[in-house]
Amino acid sequence: MAKRQLKLGAFMRPVSLHTGAWRYPGAYPDANFNFEHMKRFARRLEEATFDAFFMADHLAVLNMPPDALKRSHTVTSFEPFTLLSALAAVTERIGLVATGSTTFDLPYHVARRFASLDHISGGRSGWNIVTTSNPDAALNFGLDDHMEHDARYARAREFYDVVTGLWDSFADDAFVRDVESGVYVDLDRMTRLDHKGPHFSVRGPLNIARPPQGWPVIVQAGASDPGRQLAAETADAVFCAPSRLAEGQAYYADVKRRAAAAGRDPDHIKILPGAFLVAGDSVEQAQEKRRALDALVHVHSGFGSLSTMLGHDVSGFDPDGPLPDLPPTNASRSTQDKIVSFARQENLTIRQLAHRVGGYSGLAFVGTARTIADSMQEWLEADACDGFNVMFPYLPEGLDDVVDKVVPELRRRGLFRTAYEGRTLRENLGVPRPENRRV
Amino acid sequence: MAKRQLKLGAFMRPVSLHTGAWRYPGAYPDANFNFEHMKRFARRLEEATFDAFFMADHLAVLNMPPDALKRSHTVTSFEPFTLLSALAAVTERIGLVATGSTTFDLPYHVARRFASLDHISGGRSGWNIVTTSNPDAALNFGLDDHMEHDARYARAREFYDVVTGLWDSFADDAFVRDVESGVYVDLDRMTRLDHKGPHFSVRGPLNIARPPQGWPVIVQAGASDPGRQLAAETADAVFCAPSRLAEGQAYYADVKRRAAAAGRDPDHIKILPGAFLVAGDSVEQAQEKRRALDALVHVHSGFGSLSTMLGHDVSGFDPDGPLPDLPPTNASRSTQDKIVSFARQENLTIRQLAHRVGGYSGLAFVGTARTIADSMQEWLEADACDGFNVMFPYLPEGLDDVVDKVVPELRRRGLFRTAYEGRTLRENLGVPRPENRRV
Repeated sequence: MAKRQLKLGAFMRPVSLHTGAWRYPGAYPDANFNFEHMKRFARRLEEATFDAFFMADHLAVLNMPPDALKRSHTVTSFEPFTLLSALAAVTERIGLVATGSTTFDLPYHVARRFASLDHISGGRSGWNIVTTSNPDAALNFGLDDHMEHDARYARAREFYDVVTGLWDSFADDAFVRDVESGVYVDLDRMTRLDHKGPHFSVRGPLNIARPPQGWPVIVQAGASDPGRQLAAETADAVFCAPSRLAEGQAYYADVKRRAAAAGRDPDHIKILPGAFLVAGDSVEQAQEKRRALDALVHVHSGFGSLSTMLGHDVSGFDPDGPLPDLPPTNASRSTQDKIVSFARQENLTIRQLAHRVGGYSGLAFVGTARTIADSMQEWLEADACDGFNVMFPYLPEGLDDVVDKVVPELRRRGLFRTAYEGRTLRENLGVPRPENRRV
Repeated sequence: MAKRQLKLGAFMRPVSLHTGAWRYPGAYPDANFNFEHMKRFARRLEEATFDAFFMADHLAVLNMPPDALKRSHTVTSFEPFTLLSALAAVTERIGLVATGSTTFDLPYHVARRFASLDHISGGRSGWNIVTTSNPDAALNFGLDDHMEHDARYARAREFYDVVTGLWDSFADDAFVRDVESGVYVDLDRMTRLDHKGPHFSVRGPLNIARPPQGWPVIVQAGASDPGRQLAAETADAVFCAPSRLAEGQAYYADVKRRAAAAGRDPDHIKILPGAFLVAGDSVEQAQEKRRALDALVHVHSGFGSLSTMLGHDVSGFDPDGPLPDLPPTNASRSTQDKIVSFARQENLTIRQLAHRVGGYSGLAFVGTARTIADSMQEWLEADACDGFNVMFPYLPEGLDDVVDKVVPELRRRGLFRTAYEGRTLRENLGVPRPENRRV
């Protein structure tokens, strides 16, 4: 049997997710609203046979202290559906994964847009289900406060059931389009949904043919207990954020076990940890690149990021003291826990924590193509992942470094494809096309 | 001063809006979900310097009798934002106008998507504000019945105020992106909205830079009194559906007068009646094409269309009797009134009415390029329009006939541009770029 290979997604923000990236030499500070740059990135990733281009999203200008906000390139950007649909028209094989909120949107709209993107792209769309937890977003949608963590997951699960039900409104062969008899659609191959649940009441059918993939690829990033469970039951691919190999292995084993317990083939849910790749011609050069990048983060941006991630404004704390105990908030628990344990472990002051968090503080492989490929291979072979959701430290250089250096090394080792296996994102990821459950 | 010229939009459904079109020789019955066809149509229209590609929309599989539904190609189609964004990537100058419902969507989402499409397309997006009136759509969004006509317009007006307010979140020059100092955005050039009204509570700011056009072009199709008033106060372009010249002149005068009364330059609101163009090499040939097309409409499709437009199921009526008095419904009043008066005037049976309505029963210019150009010129010079929203009887032939025959004739007469005047839809339509009212 062929060697197990990595699946690679690209986790994109137009300028990079690193706060200092827009000031990095050669960067495109205007990429947030410059489609030509996005087209170039997507085409290079496709040349490198990446599985998917994943567009992260926010539903608000995040509430940072002004001195951080004014330095941030991440608060504004293209809306994911418009961006990915435009990219669909100028690419042929790469998957296109968009975030869709189950908290601030409605299932008929979401089902329709992903189905439409799937048709336009010939079966390359994916839905990253997020249960948005940002209180600033709530205020843009007429909600004073935010739903409880568990309530968000209950709504997310019902939302998923409605959306996938709507995708099954028509059988794959419902549209007969028989010019002679004048019958366009076989109504015996169409069904209404007639869903009535605690959160949604949706009649259906969806006014769109079944997507080429049956269902667009389902992506989840569950970290908490209900998040992992939702992912295990529903996701084709999971984004996660372990910091160390052992943590990655534990997460991988837990989600695969939950998937099996839910009656699924564990191989049909791909676990993709986020990995920040900084490639250089030597390890020292790569480390120096990262230091130069981090030096471009203003400390006030760091305070802003830290406040956002903790769900708590840190500007009132002593910057040179330790992180005090925080009251519970509605922010993502797992993010908060991670930062708190991280700060306690390394005994960091608020200022030190801000510098770290303000740039990027998660899993990073910093080195040569060879050392990076070593790490990726180690994770794959140790059952800590099925691939990675790659983050680029700066663009375009960081992306070009991965495409030109790391990908060829992975291919040499037989760890990554040299050509796409199929036409659809499901075919490339190696996850099955769902049967229509309804008609 | 240069001669006044026509503005031309293309009112598109992928297969055409005529129910029989998918069976017409050479048609693409699968165009609903075949992006290559849509790309071809958009590029041909751009070659002909059309102002805009307008994508009509529904938010449901319309509730027709099964025998009509199974014959309909118009119940399913691409979702407009995904389609127009994809077209933005493969065109350069043509405007891209999408329908956005104020009844079943939320202003932060709508503001974001149009702004994003405007950035991706370099200033070519337009928002056709619709106050959706279809009860089938309501059932897909958890509403048992539908909002009252007047309540829909009150909500639409507030929705518009919020969306345009959000587009003004940032000054045009807010993004300074000063790499040296590290300041990305000038916060004195950003403002929150803090809107609290009867229908919406939206804090803002929008997480997207001000659109290239300031605001995407605002389109309305108001026919009723509150509809006309909303259009006169807010629209850059108005779609309307007069059947005869005198009716067009009355509508034109009324909306221009209302715009002036609202303090606007009447020249900055373009009135574009829908016109169904059937071009042939002779008038007889064009008439024969239309007859052949209408013959492809099954009478049961006609009953379905008639039921939808009346907001009342006609299947219980005697098909060979006259239209009885109808109880009031929540369907569009103006559409209902038009059909009723049409039926009474010509003393049509239900069956005759169904054949007419099932195909296309509005304003049509059927003839040679010369006679069609005569009619268009007559309407322009009689102050019945500023241009037309062109409907093609069948695709691609009907579109190619207009591009290859009618447009050259209009250009010869100096009635239509030979090259785009500008880069943005506003520049081509000749409507001003709005000043930022807020920051």
